[in-house]
Amino acid sequence: MNIDMIRAAATRIKGHAVHTPLLNAPLLDEVAGRRVWVKAECLQLTGSFKFRGAWSALSALDDATRAKGVIAFSSGNHAQGVALAARMHGVPAVIIMPADSPQMKLDNTRAYGAEVITYDRGSEDRDEIGARLSAERGLTLVKPFDDPQVIAGQGTVGLEIAEQAAAQGISEADVIVCCGGGGLTSGIALALEADAPGMRVRPAEPEGFDDVARSLRSGGIERNNRMSGNICDAIITPQPGDLTWPILKRLSGPGMVITEDEALQAMAHAWDRLKIVAEPGGAAALAAALFHGDTLQGDDVIVTISGGNVDPAMFARALAFSA
Amino acid sequence: MNIDMIRAAATRIKGHAVHTPLLNAPLLDEVAGRRVWVKAECLQLTGSFKFRGAWSALSALDDATRAKGVIAFSSGNHAQGVALAARMHGVPAVIIMPADSPQMKLDNTRAYGAEVITYDRGSEDRDEIGARLSAERGLTLVKPFDDPQVIAGQGTVGLEIAEQAAAQGISEADVIVCCGGGGLTSGIALALEADAPGMRVRPAEPEGFDDVARSLRSGGIERNNRMSGNICDAIITPQPGDLTWPILKRLSGPGMVITEDEALQAMAHAWDRLKIVAEPGGAAALAAALFHGDTLQGDDVIVTISGGNVDPAMFARALAFSA
Repeated sequence: MNIDMIRAAATRIKGHAVHTPLLNAPLLDEVAGRRVWVKAECLQLTGSFKFRGAWSALSALDDATRAKGVIAFSSGNHAQGVALAARMHGVPAVIIMPADSPQMKLDNTRAYGAEVITYDRGSEDRDEIGARLSAERGLTLVKPFDDPQVIAGQGTVGLEIAEQAAAQGISEADVIVCCGGGGLTSGIALALEADAPGMRVRPAEPEGFDDVARSLRSGGIERNNRMSGNICDAIITPQPGDLTWPILKRLSGPGMVITEDEALQAMAHAWDRLKIVAEPGGAAALAAALFHGDTLQGDDVIVTISGGNVDPAMFARALAFSA
Repeated sequence: MNIDMIRAAATRIKGHAVHTPLLNAPLLDEVAGRRVWVKAECLQLTGSFKFRGAWSALSALDDATRAKGVIAFSSGNHAQGVALAARMHGVPAVIIMPADSPQMKLDNTRAYGAEVITYDRGSEDRDEIGARLSAERGLTLVKPFDDPQVIAGQGTVGLEIAEQAAAQGISEADVIVCCGGGGLTSGIALALEADAPGMRVRPAEPEGFDDVARSLRSGGIERNNRMSGNICDAIITPQPGDLTWPILKRLSGPGMVITEDEALQAMAHAWDRLKIVAEPGGAAALAAALFHGDTLQGDDVIVTISGGNVDPAMFARALAFSA
């Protein structure tokens, strides 16, 4: 896992993914007490950065392997990213999802052309289903974060941040990243190490699901006690990944932790001042910048808004913080 | 008024305005029945394209004139664009607004650093107030659309569309533009005439306020009967401008007309599929592409989302069309 893999992924992805803008709004700066720069990955295809990692992984396969198709386990943004990347490559995708997934997530994944196979969480073993299908059809598994080509794809966000920040004259800043398994955070960290060494990555996580923040403090991998019960569902994972953790340990600054209400308020500010749609987990980094700025250094802070896949009812909860 | 003025405005604006993305979403294409490309000017500073025209006008003034300050009549997006452009130039801005303007609009304009002067619509003459202040302080009037440098600034949107569409291999398409006084539409038309001659501009207007569509049909300037009573308030003007009309007459295809419900539905689709915030008037062009595609030519259509300044209650009305 190195910077050359990220640069190669950037070459493969060019013209296929959205080169998302780095947005700023003066009235948002006033809330944060410093200039806030928002890398708007909610504007990425499928509504989250996950498309980048999926495209990177698929485009790195040899033609014969890719032609047989890919498989992923996900009910969320990774599912949609893999489904569309596969369709754009003209190859089949199988997505294994819990039968009780929200209908909208099942529908979206199918709409991007994937074959969705559901399983009963209580009585069926998803890994067994996946292994059987992969063996029968020769499908390649695309993991959500702990895969070098997936990390390389997410790292292209970091290359773009370095270039866009330099165009604004910014070479030093904390870069807060919404962090689940750490694919996006570690990819950005590697890209900034190479192209913007004055910047420092800091993961943002929801309260009670701060495995990465605690791991960074203790120096070893810490686990979350729970896997559900927070609106920031997109960035809840059991623990840092085997590949992502060593990168985070080496390159990341201290983790930042935000509350559910802070995530909703950040969504409202993103709607009001930036005119973009964030999902709760995708607003974690902005929430950290707006409401925990006392731990930040410098006149500028850069944050990712990593995704915008949110249902109308949850969005209405966020809007209630506006006005 | 010519393409050289637009290119000069683009040079002056570079690095100050957002180079907004041209977004596409496969699941939105399915609604439209063709590929839809969205120039997301809601992501522009102050939440609308108006910042471009304001910046262009201010940056074209000589230093001594600009230093005395500028004045504008507006309660909407133009007010915010002029206020921020003036602040970024370090010069004063006076904005004349009706005393009964929504509090949020008064607050936002002040937040961008402008001096807001209110007048009573019933008893006071805003032009008299403006003329007196301009004479006393040497302020320069920045008109909302009927000014060559303002049109030049809005035309930079067209230069970017031509370049971004070419990068996608698109040289022929209808380009639907949300149209009030015609500053954005005529600016884009001039830019495309030079840089993408296979494209054709088409104005989008709300039902009952389709002065430009009727003018294009009759060949002479037609007026609207009313000036209020539609949620697309940002694009309601009495008639095409003296400068914009000849450009529209020469270069524009037939106008497109949309209903209020279509604007709200387009806002919901923009939220759901593009993760961007549109105001009703800013969604008119997308509504035309989604719901009146029978009058379009070709496999691709390009639309502007011209602004995203909308209050939470109106946005909730749009979200009700989602799900």
